[in-house]
Amino acid sequence: MTELAEAIFRPKAIALVGASADSGKHSALPQRHLAQHGYAGALYPINPRRTEVLGLKAYASVSAVPSPVDHAYIMLPTEQVLAAARDCVSAGVRCMTIMSNGFAEAGEVGHERQSQLLALLTGSRTRLLGPNALGVVDLHAKVALSANEVLSLCELPAGDVGLISQSGSMLGAILSRGAARGVGFSKLVSVGNEADITVAELVEIMAADAHTRVIQLFIETIRAPEALRGAVAMATAAGKPVLAYRLGRSALGQELAVSHTGALTGSGRAASAFLRDIGVAEVRNLDALIDGAPLFRGARPTGSRVAVMSTTGGGGALVVDNLGERDLHVSPPPAAARERLAQQGIAVGAAPLVDLTLAGTNPATYGAVMREVLAEDGIDALVCVVGSSSQFRPERAVAPILAGRTGKPLAVFLTPQADRSQRLLREAGIAVFSQPEACADAMSAWASWRAPRTLDTVRADAASEQLRRHASGATLNAVDSQAVFASLGIEQVREWVLHADPGSWAREAVSGIIYPCVLKVSSPDVPHRTEVGGVKLGIGDADELQAAALEMRRSVTAALPHAHIEGFQVQETARGLAEVLVGFSRDATVGPVVSVGMGGVLSELYHDVSIRPAPVSEQEAHAMIAEVKAFAALKGYRNLPRGDVHALARTIARVSTLVAADPAVAEAEINPLMVLGEGEGVRALDGLVVLK
Amino acid sequence: MTELAEAIFRPKAIALVGASADSGKHSALPQRHLAQHGYAGALYPINPRRTEVLGLKAYASVSAVPSPVDHAYIMLPTEQVLAAARDCVSAGVRCMTIMSNGFAEAGEVGHERQSQLLALLTGSRTRLLGPNALGVVDLHAKVALSANEVLSLCELPAGDVGLISQSGSMLGAILSRGAARGVGFSKLVSVGNEADITVAELVEIMAADAHTRVIQLFIETIRAPEALRGAVAMATAAGKPVLAYRLGRSALGQELAVSHTGALTGSGRAASAFLRDIGVAEVRNLDALIDGAPLFRGARPTGSRVAVMSTTGGGGALVVDNLGERDLHVSPPPAAARERLAQQGIAVGAAPLVDLTLAGTNPATYGAVMREVLAEDGIDALVCVVGSSSQFRPERAVAPILAGRTGKPLAVFLTPQADRSQRLLREAGIAVFSQPEACADAMSAWASWRAPRTLDTVRADAASEQLRRHASGATLNAVDSQAVFASLGIEQVREWVLHADPGSWAREAVSGIIYPCVLKVSSPDVPHRTEVGGVKLGIGDADELQAAALEMRRSVTAALPHAHIEGFQVQETARGLAEVLVGFSRDATVGPVVSVGMGGVLSELYHDVSIRPAPVSEQEAHAMIAEVKAFAALKGYRNLPRGDVHALARTIARVSTLVAADPAVAEAEINPLMVLGEGEGVRALDGLVVLK
Repeated sequence: MTELAEAIFRPKAIALVGASADSGKHSALPQRHLAQHGYAGALYPINPRRTEVLGLKAYASVSAVPSPVDHAYIMLPTEQVLAAARDCVSAGVRCMTIMSNGFAEAGEVGHERQSQLLALLTGSRTRLLGPNALGVVDLHAKVALSANEVLSLCELPAGDVGLISQSGSMLGAILSRGAARGVGFSKLVSVGNEADITVAELVEIMAADAHTRVIQLFIETIRAPEALRGAVAMATAAGKPVLAYRLGRSALGQELAVSHTGALTGSGRAASAFLRDIGVAEVRNLDALIDGAPLFRGARPTGSRVAVMSTTGGGGALVVDNLGERDLHVSPPPAAARERLAQQGIAVGAAPLVDLTLAGTNPATYGAVMREVLAEDGIDALVCVVGSSSQFRPERAVAPILAGRTGKPLAVFLTPQADRSQRLLREAGIAVFSQPEACADAMSAWASWRAPRTLDTVRADAASEQLRRHASGATLNAVDSQAVFASLGIEQVREWVLHADPGSWAREAVSGIIYPCVLKVSSPDVPHRTEVGGVKLGIGDADELQAAALEMRRSVTAALPHAHIEGFQVQETARGLAEVLVGFSRDATVGPVVSVGMGGVLSELYHDVSIRPAPVSEQEAHAMIAEVKAFAALKGYRNLPRGDVHALARTIARVSTLVAADPAVAEAEINPLMVLGEGEGVRALDGLVVLK
Repeated sequence: MTELAEAIFRPKAIALVGASADSGKHSALPQRHLAQHGYAGALYPINPRRTEVLGLKAYASVSAVPSPVDHAYIMLPTEQVLAAARDCVSAGVRCMTIMSNGFAEAGEVGHERQSQLLALLTGSRTRLLGPNALGVVDLHAKVALSANEVLSLCELPAGDVGLISQSGSMLGAILSRGAARGVGFSKLVSVGNEADITVAELVEIMAADAHTRVIQLFIETIRAPEALRGAVAMATAAGKPVLAYRLGRSALGQELAVSHTGALTGSGRAASAFLRDIGVAEVRNLDALIDGAPLFRGARPTGSRVAVMSTTGGGGALVVDNLGERDLHVSPPPAAARERLAQQGIAVGAAPLVDLTLAGTNPATYGAVMREVLAEDGIDALVCVVGSSSQFRPERAVAPILAGRTGKPLAVFLTPQADRSQRLLREAGIAVFSQPEACADAMSAWASWRAPRTLDTVRADAASEQLRRHASGATLNAVDSQAVFASLGIEQVREWVLHADPGSWAREAVSGIIYPCVLKVSSPDVPHRTEVGGVKLGIGDADELQAAALEMRRSVTAALPHAHIEGFQVQETARGLAEVLVGFSRDATVGPVVSVGMGGVLSELYHDVSIRPAPVSEQEAHAMIAEVKAFAALKGYRNLPRGDVHALARTIARVSTLVAADPAVAEAEINPLMVLGEGEGVRALDGLVVLK
């Protein structure tokens, strides 16, 4: 462990700043918790109005403590925090945890206060956990440095699960729930506002920690995405899975996260895409976080075909239905396994649920089915459902599962209240669930758990050359935007640019146009052209074109009198199979992302868009295309003609290289991108680029 | 209670057919369970090889028992069941429960066996529960007539929740989980294959039962939909809510239900729509079924604005996020309530979560906020979230909730493991949850809980007249189908019908056509015209029309050489805002339904279709339109022009009257129905009608 990690989790000397001598007060709790859980180091209550606090000698300030303090825990009223922190810094405290709130989570004044706090650290050796952080726990080192009431529990089993939480109270709730089930934790830390030490740095510490084998996150926002990417890579290299439960999946939840954490919040979808991209498994069910860890202790999935076996038809169906709702691939037992079982006198059908009924409560039968099913290459994971025997004969119910398991992921769902079986399985390192929804959610998180993706280094030289012609902050007009996309090698519909006065168009300017064509007004002041009559389709010849342009100028000017009309774009009429939107943007939380979805309002209404941190390879872009439900229509669904998804993937990858453009692009989109038939490519019809 | 209900749940004399003298055997369990739970009636083991079974005199058959038997419980091997059942019938047994399996759930042979069983009942007073049914429990009457192992538990609190389950093992699991939490049940019954007594009849019995106040269903299929509608209406009239957990929401789950229950299974969506229509509240989370009952003890919702208050920010956000994911309307505390609280010195913000932080653990504060929020008309229900105090000071944490509640629905989510608080709240009749997902799911089920809908009597005389021209089983061609829809008063695009030989079309036949027009082939043998070149758009004049028709005849004949081409349909080109599909069909499970969704493959890919039992009123059709996400595009979303949703609702209602058509319609659809702008109506462009 690094010296900083030691100071955070295993300090030899702790100061409790603001420790109360009134044992009924919240600020008396850390001292009680440390004693209760057997802290063996030096402990200094800091309280200028006392010489003694609950049996220990008290000091007026941290700098008054005669020997070095590794970790100071500050629980003062907000307005006293800065002075105390200054004192800690000058006393050379290695880590201070500030429990007090009233900082970045509390509006502008709080933000300013937090900046002052951070400024104190400059040039010092002191690092800060919080503010608004509830403390740290190391169950192996017997350090319970927190006012979290959950530490009043006598029984907190030490184990190998490390928990990092942005919510102090939920840290307590998860510890409390876990403890009741016998889940053992190694280290737990509440990070508060992450003014200095971030989740990423703590993941790094846990990646290197000998007592931690699984890292769990309870988070509301992602504050240092690139550092987190590096930290998760370290954890992965150390063979330690990182599981997350993320608040803010709904729009309402995101709104709350902003007020709650004081952080900027980007799109919840972008955050989920980011977590998956960096190799974090995200669960969506609270119990799946607590109970699911054993599923992730093995290798990442190479396939996601899940078999389900049960001694209870109803209980088995409950799991299968929940897996089905999460679009998991539930596989019947392969024929070869059924044949081998038949030779042993065990009849198993080809239904997606291996329903053993009462016969399956015979341990020999249950074990044999498990072994034969798990032996099959076509099965990647198994869910075992156990009925009433798990409640009334736990040892007997659990034995075949312990005997029959292999290295493949295994989850167990117990239908009745079966505490003893739960504990036996958990102690044996098997993922066991009492909620069918949690079981299915954990399996689903496992099935979509990916290795951290390495972002390629990309170049966008030609695009940069185009972009340098524009001022920073500029919104490029459609013609210039199209030029940027063309420089990325993205095919466009044939296009002709005409000046703003249709009455004096030269014959040669309009001579090459292919009819029927589309006419669009070109103006930096008209972002939504359709709404002001700035687009006209199906123009049949040159006369019609001129008349349409004159009419368009009138209509646009009527709607937006101050719009500067630079000219007109004329495009050939593109016929394709689908109009798609490819976008590049910088998410407020996770940074540059590329996205793709069907054009039009429906993909927005259905949230049917795939997002990835940029850049992406063509292969990754294919994975994105596979995530968009509407693209089934481009892949032969209901005998519809197939679209050129390869060209679409190529385009997504090329748009994603805008991450490397200089000057930096704030956002860009091709909308619509027409996807033609297989082998016929794609055509950008319209686009927009905004510079930072 | 009726005499039948007495015989089922409170028999004075029970025969256990196939009772084993080996106490380790499954078939010895009912005798043990009855004794253990204090059954005071007469008990007769039936076992021809014994004179005594576990201390009781045994008889060779039920007819050998000297006094009348109310309820016989049969647990014999499948092949001995028929003889035993015959014996019960001749002995005048009022109710027999058959636990044995091997009937309708076991393929064709089993179906035949079940028919023979049913035939025995004809003309007798004997009624049948099962086969494949695990038994009945009446906790008030101390009747535990089942081999379900859960009855080995000593502590089974009697209460007022009645449970009817199609899964015997899940009945045990729910009872076991409930008992561990202190949920008290009145009657529990496993219905098996429902060969005779159905879920509906048992709902009726529970509706009339003095001990039952809430009725819960665990079901995989709906076997007697119209009887269930009547039974739920009776329960509703008696003020008893009916809650259901339904397996088979996913395609996989439905597939399993078919094999598992031996029943036909229709669409899961139709089943859910049906349950809601008849007034059943459907939960989707198992714990929501067990914990949610108190939410439904009051009146049905008149609004669904939910307020959330919490002493823990993270825990509160957990609930808000889950509510948001289920599209619930979470409301901030109204300004008036915040003002009244400010006057009491309690500052509450306008965020959707009332986050009281630690200050809220003061009972006076918590209680005041509850009262003021619940007093507001703008709040229909409240979720209270309680943090660590619920674990460490349960009485203190629970007191303000008990004091502050009003008649409005109230749910409590406890973040830590807080068994004592849970029990206190549950005993006080408050819905308390330990899973945020269950809490949100129960609130969501409550918010969409409707009063049973009364189906209007409708007529479809004009349509019947049209339909009588066709043979039963006929698939009407497009022209005839359109005539049926026209007879319902649904507007069509202008259409001209031309004979099959374009070369000899008379001038007058084509004279009135409005161009540009659409040409379609008319043939009963070509259901999907687009795929064989049977539709052409944008035809500009008469010459083009004739040429297109000749070409179309060639192309259709090339693709389908045996297709009989009856002629051609010519339609004016309809321009509208959206193409919609309105359908009528007969679901295999719940019967006639009407459905509406956006046309095209996307609504299928997104399952974005609203379904209702037919017929529906215009008002109900508006509720259907509101359920379809894609229709936001017709209601001003993103400033898109508004469509004539009133005409759409009228059309849905009219199509739904096909339920009354004679001869009976098997299925019908208008696809597409073009929706024009507000006030401009709709136009049917194509349709299909299939007779039964």
